[in-house]
Amino acid sequence: SRSINLAVIPGDGIGQEVVAQGLKVLRAVLPQDVKLETKEYDLGARRWHRTGETLPDAELEALKGHDALLLGAIGDPSVPSGVLERGLLLKLRFAFDHYVNLRPSKLFPNTATPLAGRPDIDFVVVREGTEGPYTGNGGSLRTGTPAEVATEVSVNTAYGVERVVRDAYERANARPRKKLTLVHKNNVLVYAGHMWKKIFDRVGEEYPEVTTDYLHVDAATIFFVTQPERFDVIVTDNLFGDILTDLAAAVTGGIGLAASGNINPAGDFPSMFEPVHGSAPDIAGQGKADPTATVLSVALLLRHLGHEAEAVRIEEAVSADLAARTGAAARTTDEIGDALAVRVAN
Amino acid sequence: SRSINLAVIPGDGIGQEVVAQGLKVLRAVLPQDVKLETKEYDLGARRWHRTGETLPDAELEALKGHDALLLGAIGDPSVPSGVLERGLLLKLRFAFDHYVNLRPSKLFPNTATPLAGRPDIDFVVVREGTEGPYTGNGGSLRTGTPAEVATEVSVNTAYGVERVVRDAYERANARPRKKLTLVHKNNVLVYAGHMWKKIFDRVGEEYPEVTTDYLHVDAATIFFVTQPERFDVIVTDNLFGDILTDLAAAVTGGIGLAASGNINPAGDFPSMFEPVHGSAPDIAGQGKADPTATVLSVALLLRHLGHEAEAVRIEEAVSADLAARTGAAARTTDEIGDALAVRVAN
Ligand SMILES: CC(C)[C@H](C(=O)O)[C@@H](O)C(=O)O
Ligand SMILES: CC(C)[C@H](C(=O)O)[C@@H](O)C(=O)O
Repeated sequence: SRSINLAVIPGDGIGQEVVAQGLKVLRAVLPQDVKLETKEYDLGARRWHRTGETLPDAELEALKGHDALLLGAIGDPSVPSGVLERGLLLKLRFAFDHYVNLRPSKLFPNTATPLAGRPDIDFVVVREGTEGPYTGNGGSLRTGTPAEVATEVSVNTAYGVERVVRDAYERANARPRKKLTLVHKNNVLVYAGHMWKKIFDRVGEEYPEVTTDYLHVDAATIFFVTQPERFDVIVTDNLFGDILTDLAAAVTGGIGLAASGNINPAGDFPSMFEPVHGSAPDIAGQGKADPTATVLSVALLLRHLGHEAEAVRIEEAVSADLAARTGAAARTTDEIGDALAVRVAN
Repeated sequence: SRSINLAVIPGDGIGQEVVAQGLKVLRAVLPQDVKLETKEYDLGARRWHRTGETLPDAELEALKGHDALLLGAIGDPSVPSGVLERGLLLKLRFAFDHYVNLRPSKLFPNTATPLAGRPDIDFVVVREGTEGPYTGNGGSLRTGTPAEVATEVSVNTAYGVERVVRDAYERANARPRKKLTLVHKNNVLVYAGHMWKKIFDRVGEEYPEVTTDYLHVDAATIFFVTQPERFDVIVTDNLFGDILTDLAAAVTGGIGLAASGNINPAGDFPSMFEPVHGSAPDIAGQGKADPTATVLSVALLLRHLGHEAEAVRIEEAVSADLAARTGAAARTTDEIGDALAVRVAN
């Protein structure tokens, strides 16, 4: 479309800094005739301290009116663990039915990886985003006593699993290697695991060209470090996807480069794009954060909204920027953003 | 004690081969005056195919009479996923209340690690073994229909968490670095996660010399590959421990070297020792399996039964054996077992 009405949630810690660079690059890459409107939402730790609110209904409603959301990072040590995560970040993912949490991993040239031999890594994790152990089901009985029982319920539906599995097959089918790996733990989590596997196998019949594979999550972590080149597309549950994509980021240049999209493919609600990294309060406000993950998330945002050429321009700019990097002085957040903005504008 | 009455469950795939070497080294290391009795139990895939049984009550009863169990590996592709895992392996862990699943990770000299720079890795994971998402709680409603709902319930009790956390503090306190890291996901799994954290903090007051740390499981996987030297003792839940210890094995020379003990510290039931690796049906019967993980599990077994000197002798033998390894021809399972038996006998 010829206009983008973007909601921006800088959030906490380095969120503000990296989002500023993401917007800078977005402005630089967009053709003149695409009108960009942005509206900033003050959500996160400061807001919570001030008002006690995480995500009021009125703002949730207002957010629905946007074409997409760009989010920096959520979370601060001054807020009890879980309050902002559950009350804001996960609330958005659930309210906007972001059932595809898309997390590509690519080892760009000239980036640091802890892996010897620099394997050729280029895969994408399709993490389910609205079910599993993330539903907030569960509770605590006799809290704080020696007799306390605390439960967490992983809720999985055929409806929810089939739609994300199908999305993953579509993505695998559109890639040259056409390979899809299901990751679960169906030798222990037999109820959810068997349902995932059955649906995975059944939907697979509709994609005869896609080669499939199954791995238990523990074995998958081994292959992430010993043979990451074996992966093309991975589909997995919400919690396994959370764990695997941090590991994936670590082996592909670090969390500073890992982008993600929380996508509602049906388009019922706006999708939300955010770096995989957190708010990193220890380096906030110092211009040390790498905005590349946010910039790459902007590329995913553009692709989702149909601006494929611009998405590719950003990805190529990041690749070129990383390749041109010298071992010299570390660049500031702003310098990296400027460099990328210049590259995409050309 | 001057006698060991050992139950041996070779199990499936390479289990038979590696257990044979474990016993060989055990016989070689034991002083003449320690009487070793072993009784083999035919449990696993073959038994299940023959009789439909996984672990009959009579055998469970008989196993209780042993001082310890040595297990090879459980699982075969010919058996539906979960049948042997839940019906045999996990059944033993639960029936014998193996609440400490002990998994040391050490990067021995001259072993392959996928990590560049060969960091100095020497930590131990204390994985809870009797709760969490492994309890088999959960179910499936409208199974096989488009309206199916499948749940998995993670059950956590203050009783269960406190005892394993306390065990981990004891272990941390006994090590030179005295550092204990709790790994959970308390920003999402708030009921279980907060209970773990509260108990972790409270028990910590009794161990003023132990430095503590908390990491979300996703962040922990990053540090496993970027900074594994930061870990000393890790305590975590059953599922996170499963995932993390495979990753730990991968970065410390591979799954062929990773030992584990399923321990009942109270001594109410026999503890069980097993390599972390699976039954590896693809290489079974070919003499290709590395028995070192099983041999190191035998060291944990000896330590548990009070034979500390013999445990250390095995660990030193493994270290020396690995250091002496040349890049030459791969050794057979038997050759590695022989080499270790010779070393411990000296
Ligand atoms: C902050 C947290 C709730 C979140 C998650 O667990 O999904 C984060 O780790 C992520 O991966 O986006
Ligand atoms: C085989 C399986 C049930 C088991 C587990 O998940 O505990 C294995 O992965 C392990 O780590 O011992």
